[in-house]
Amino acid sequence: MAEKYPSLHRACLHLEFIHANSTTHGFLFGALAELLDNARDAGAARLDVFSVDNEKLQGGFMLCFLDDGCGMSPEEASYIINFGIHKKHSPTLKFIGQYGNGLKSGSMRIGKDFILFTKKEETMTCVLFSQTFCEEEGLSEVVVPMPSWLTKTRESLTDDPQKFSTELSVIYKFSPFQNEAELMQQFDVIYGKCGTLLVIYNLKLLLNGEPELDVKTDKEDILMAGDLEGFPETWSFRAYTSVLYFDPCMKIFIQAKKVQTKHLCYCLYRPRKYLYATSSFKGVLKNEVRKAQEAVQMAELTLKEAHIKVHQADGTAAASAQDILEKALEDAEAKHKNLKEKQRELRKAKTLSLFFGVNLENPSQDGMFLYSNSRLIKMHEKVGPQLKRKSLLGTGVVGIVNIPLEIMEPSHNKQQFLHIQEYNHLLRVMGQYLIQYCKDTGI
Amino acid sequence: MAEKYPSLHRACLHLEFIHANSTTHGFLFGALAELLDNARDAGAARLDVFSVDNEKLQGGFMLCFLDDGCGMSPEEASYIINFGIHKKHSPTLKFIGQYGNGLKSGSMRIGKDFILFTKKEETMTCVLFSQTFCEEEGLSEVVVPMPSWLTKTRESLTDDPQKFSTELSVIYKFSPFQNEAELMQQFDVIYGKCGTLLVIYNLKLLLNGEPELDVKTDKEDILMAGDLEGFPETWSFRAYTSVLYFDPCMKIFIQAKKVQTKHLCYCLYRPRKYLYATSSFKGVLKNEVRKAQEAVQMAELTLKEAHIKVHQADGTAAASAQDILEKALEDAEAKHKNLKEKQRELRKAKTLSLFFGVNLENPSQDGMFLYSNSRLIKMHEKVGPQLKRKSLLGTGVVGIVNIPLEIMEPSHNKQQFLHIQEYNHLLRVMGQYLIQYCKDTGI
Repeated sequence: MAEKYPSLHRACLHLEFIHANSTTHGFLFGALAELLDNARDAGAARLDVFSVDNEKLQGGFMLCFLDDGCGMSPEEASYIINFGIHKKHSPTLKFIGQYGNGLKSGSMRIGKDFILFTKKEETMTCVLFSQTFCEEEGLSEVVVPMPSWLTKTRESLTDDPQKFSTELSVIYKFSPFQNEAELMQQFDVIYGKCGTLLVIYNLKLLLNGEPELDVKTDKEDILMAGDLEGFPETWSFRAYTSVLYFDPCMKIFIQAKKVQTKHLCYCLYRPRKYLYATSSFKGVLKNEVRKAQEAVQMAELTLKEAHIKVHQADGTAAASAQDILEKALEDAEAKHKNLKEKQRELRKAKTLSLFFGVNLENPSQDGMFLYSNSRLIKMHEKVGPQLKRKSLLGTGVVGIVNIPLEIMEPSHNKQQFLHIQEYNHLLRVMGQYLIQYCKDTGI
Repeated sequence: MAEKYPSLHRACLHLEFIHANSTTHGFLFGALAELLDNARDAGAARLDVFSVDNEKLQGGFMLCFLDDGCGMSPEEASYIINFGIHKKHSPTLKFIGQYGNGLKSGSMRIGKDFILFTKKEETMTCVLFSQTFCEEEGLSEVVVPMPSWLTKTRESLTDDPQKFSTELSVIYKFSPFQNEAELMQQFDVIYGKCGTLLVIYNLKLLLNGEPELDVKTDKEDILMAGDLEGFPETWSFRAYTSVLYFDPCMKIFIQAKKVQTKHLCYCLYRPRKYLYATSSFKGVLKNEVRKAQEAVQMAELTLKEAHIKVHQADGTAAASAQDILEKALEDAEAKHKNLKEKQRELRKAKTLSLFFGVNLENPSQDGMFLYSNSRLIKMHEKVGPQLKRKSLLGTGVVGIVNIPLEIMEPSHNKQQFLHIQEYNHLLRVMGQYLIQYCKDTGI
């Protein structure tokens, strides 16, 4: 399709936005979690997070994420450097990534540069996303070398050998890998037929000059540098990843040691499930129905016009009018189907499952865990009687809820929910159910 | 300058990113505050925030921001639609905007579309930034019409009348203003010689279908829809804006009524100021010095090469070599100057002023107020004894600190600080000074 409005301005992206965008992640583990989400969305059965020492690089080590997911073709790899394309939408909405931003915001919160290696089918692709490169070359745009090879022969896959060679020379200069042999070694690290290795380097530092992540104190974990206070999930990446997913389905290894992922609902003493049916989320569905109705009306109108044109046209125009009519028919049908779907959704009362139980191991680590589309957003949120210091009611009780995307959307950094009003309402409701749970179980 | 690496990929921006980017603002008033920051950075003496009813638009009203700041030329207006250009950097760092993102993330959190009118010197420019337009036309890029006129004659300012007319037709179709007369009326609303009017429309709705901002309950305020719980700054925009700046210097009017901005430090009973000198922020400055040293070395090297070339060259090459030498000299001088500046900064111990005092009017509204570069980031943060329910020490005491950008950077949404470790350290320090304050004043 020819570009529409070719002469008009377009919103563009500038190098400095890379840093600005990454500042969404106040909570550093939230940045790492974005990269775990990507592996999960790629269908990985196993993900390894590990550090590789390299004293030449800022921070003294590289942080690596290796998965055996579906990998990316050269074309798919070219999408990931863009902002706002996620290519993950499916009717079941089972993917976590929805903003087309996690790789960039997450990795660039951790370090200044990344190099990514991915294998899919017959191809291997390398992507260098480097702020250092762009800055040192005085580029205001984000220029991204991404050479590809054939997996079997390791021959370059390019129509433009000059471009390929430019890309390689940039990679040798600005990545930790300084020749083709070293690049190929990284592809060899991807042990499956397909998969992805992400290497983040030139790590961001604390104001005291030390790296923000501590990989030295505990050789089997990745810790927040500095004081280890509060809930372990806030300073131990192993603890955080163990509860990151409502339904863990990917093996996670940190520094080569497996994380004991917790299906939280099944880890509690005296578990109970409550169904919370609510009509307070119906507004958004009503809007969807209204939009679908409008779309049907528009499609019907187009269809009518097409009918008239078919009757009026003759000669070659008739064939083209017939084409348009058929397309209009198809479109109208699709719009009708969509409307029925939306109406069905509206009729179906939205029900949330609220799980409660007691954390016997660590009663002080109680509170609500709220997941969006199976991904942890909020943890240890105290509700109802837990908010009152003097009350012992509800102490040690953990509550869990997994909220579908169509009810509540998470924020940019996946550390809060977007609609604070509805979120606060849900917390109040969970407080009431917590009291009910305590009554029902006599705890 | 010719484009470098013309054949390589560039990171691009897609329409869906506009929404994703806006989800950074969980706190809706934080989105509005971005637009106030822009007016302040434009040197406005007065800013008006007001609603205009329009039942045809989603939400039933438009939200308008009118300032008498410096306005924008057509060229300057074309920068604001980009991501990551701020054009505000100055050696004194007195500007709040630094990410080149506030207009887009803020406005698009509030509504789906905006139209902006700006006057500067002899020109008037209109910018339509509309997700509705792009969606309905099936555009994947963010296409932005931005026609300009001469202020005096109201003649179009364009080399391409076809483009101008396309831009106008899009604006008439997708903005609330449907002909040139209506557009000109908006420019007339800008009462000064220069200034900017931002109109946000098709407002985002709550899940119950109502607008998120309530302009009906209190005709002189803009409220969060729903329950008005907690500190007034979280649900009354008037209350929030009254403490938004450490040093209020812009008159703010909400729904035509002036906000009584508070210079918080001067509103407290028994105020005291403590100086907190710290070396814990020196790491970042040491890094800066190291970078400046490297830059000097690079410049010296270039200078040496230029000297050699001047000696070797003859004929026309000599003149060009001389040019290069002069530029290299200039550059080396600038780099030396920068290094000295950074070294001076490092020597200067960083000192923060901590203000404490009692909120006599509303003792329950105590806690710390943390500003970054004069802009409120965190409010009502309890510290030290205030965190203990049973302790009465520190009750009713408000603490205030204004943190320069070079010490701590705010996050993407300006609702938290980026370096959680350093932030938590500062809170602990403020807790200690709070105890000192209570001792010193006997409160």
